[in-house]
Amino acid sequence: MGYRSRFDIIADILHVVSGRAKKTHIMYRANLSHRLLQKYLAEVRRSSLVSYERKGRCYVLTPKGQEFLEHYREYAKRASFVEKQLNHFKLKEMVLEKLCPQR
Amino acid sequence: MGYRSRFDIIADILHVVSGRAKKTHIMYRANLSHRLLQKYLAEVRRSSLVSYERKGRCYVLTPKGQEFLEHYREYAKRASFVEKQLNHFKLKEMVLEKLCPQR
Repeated sequence: MGYRSRFDIIADILHVVSGRAKKTHIMYRANLSHRLLQKYLAEVRRSSLVSYERKGRCYVLTPKGQEFLEHYREYAKRASFVEKQLNHFKLKEMVLEKLCPQR
Repeated sequence: MGYRSRFDIIADILHVVSGRAKKTHIMYRANLSHRLLQKYLAEVRRSSLVSYERKGRCYVLTPKGQEFLEHYREYAKRASFVEKQLNHFKLKEMVLEKLCPQR
């Protein structure tokens, strides 16, 4: 793996925020640069997945954010399944390539 | 589907040749232009999947060609499975995109 998709990053942020969190906390726990955090935080707030609690000065998960996380779980499962299946397919492709190389 | 991969085309040729076949016959049954037939026929002969029978003036499948076809069956099954799974994955991706659009 290693590579995080846009949705992986958003889910990481939402996971941190699900226990309510301050900005620096999110940055640290979701392992993001300040620049990326700003960008993604703006996105999740614009989409109402996260809201800002003025008095606690922290970010909290909304019901829509909760919904996102539920769909994300399925998404992540499918992503890793597809990746595995794709690897099996590529192995089979290599067998054929060996039997009939392209040059 | 529609799009034939290199291995799909080779398998189509081997299927025709498995009942021994003349060149025009292969071209017609495997639905190939003359140019593509020449290219692929050279490849399958170079890889010894197909051999030419001088007296019958036709092409025949070799044991290695038979082996290729057996692996190809598994390859094709996996290809269509991966394609289906990838579509399921993309649907899930669209759900997330809708919950958090990128702009």
